[in-house]
Amino acid sequence: MTNELKQTEKSKLKRVPNRGNFDLETIYSILDEGFICHVGFTANGQTFVIPTSYGRIGDKLFLHGASVSRMMKNLAEGIDICVTVTLVDGLVLARSVFHHSMNYRSVVVFGRAKLIESADEKMKALEAFTEHIVKGRWDDARIPNEKELNVTTVLSLKIDEASAKIRTGDPIDDDKDYALDFWAGVIPLKLEAGEPIDDSKLKEGIDQPNYLRNQKRFKE
Amino acid sequence: MTNELKQTEKSKLKRVPNRGNFDLETIYSILDEGFICHVGFTANGQTFVIPTSYGRIGDKLFLHGASVSRMMKNLAEGIDICVTVTLVDGLVLARSVFHHSMNYRSVVVFGRAKLIESADEKMKALEAFTEHIVKGRWDDARIPNEKELNVTTVLSLKIDEASAKIRTGDPIDDDKDYALDFWAGVIPLKLEAGEPIDDSKLKEGIDQPNYLRNQKRFKE
Repeated sequence: MTNELKQTEKSKLKRVPNRGNFDLETIYSILDEGFICHVGFTANGQTFVIPTSYGRIGDKLFLHGASVSRMMKNLAEGIDICVTVTLVDGLVLARSVFHHSMNYRSVVVFGRAKLIESADEKMKALEAFTEHIVKGRWDDARIPNEKELNVTTVLSLKIDEASAKIRTGDPIDDDKDYALDFWAGVIPLKLEAGEPIDDSKLKEGIDQPNYLRNQKRFKE
Repeated sequence: MTNELKQTEKSKLKRVPNRGNFDLETIYSILDEGFICHVGFTANGQTFVIPTSYGRIGDKLFLHGASVSRMMKNLAEGIDICVTVTLVDGLVLARSVFHHSMNYRSVVVFGRAKLIESADEKMKALEAFTEHIVKGRWDDARIPNEKELNVTTVLSLKIDEASAKIRTGDPIDDDKDYALDFWAGVIPLKLEAGEPIDDSKLKEGIDQPNYLRNQKRFKE
């Protein structure tokens, strides 16, 4: 059984509805693969789009930052925001310039963020952040102390007004252009992890943990 | 001599000013390496953040889309927008969860987009788009015809209120944490191009052009 979000005036796709997707599993899998979201909000009449990391537990997306940050203060007021995650999968080269495109998967989430007040919930959200970056890391790092928790703002955004948009596959040309002598196809793109680099101040005798190379995200 | 943009109330970095950069060459090089920007705008009181491709000529950033698209119509009205490009360069694993971070390069551009009316200028912008995706492609594809130009909106955004933000290098831990027995370092990330995939309807006898594999962007 698919678990679909309701389409709303904001989240529904107007132009190419067949690229739209409201299936929660699809939305979650895109969110879980990305590292950076772009948070959009308006302050003093100006729209800002700020890249930041995030985490997810169930239907909640977490954002965090220094309590003194301008963005965190703005978002904590419960203003309407838009959070977008985009994964670039390929360059789509059609025979015509007009039909050039990208293969991608994106998710747009609308809503109002809520300040997390409880230290317990904050800790759980920070665990989700850390595990979102590298699974296995939370148990292999010094967890936040009270002072650090106090200077960190964590916000929670419910994923209940959201949509995914996906393009995959071959270019689509106009019928008559298929006879042209231009190459057409896709150059696949993928975010790849390189060899981990030891901190120049790494204490002697500490090996690179296995989980660094064992991330599901980077496997085919 | 460095060519620097003026810092404004919007573009200046409040929190970690040493990560900020107003040098035009730095800003342009980040824009030229990215494929996707995130366009933020507000319509009917709601902020939207939409991923889209872009091109650049000199101090102008170009956006384009179907003339009937909601976003293009909104932007063409000359509303205040914010365009952000983010390149993710690495996962920064500190000994403390608190100092976990990302290495990245991002550019934020503020301004109002202008509709390009002249067919000539439109064509030049579309060439910049195409060459931005794959250098060499414009001369090896069918260029837009009049009908295609007419249904395409191209907007120009002057890059004169913008800033770059960059984080590189090792994690920075609190002094006392360097003694802890946790591994610390960076997992580098890079968007890599895979082997080009022929369109399943590719005409027989058409080889993959050399420029597909000869993109500066994907070289070290």
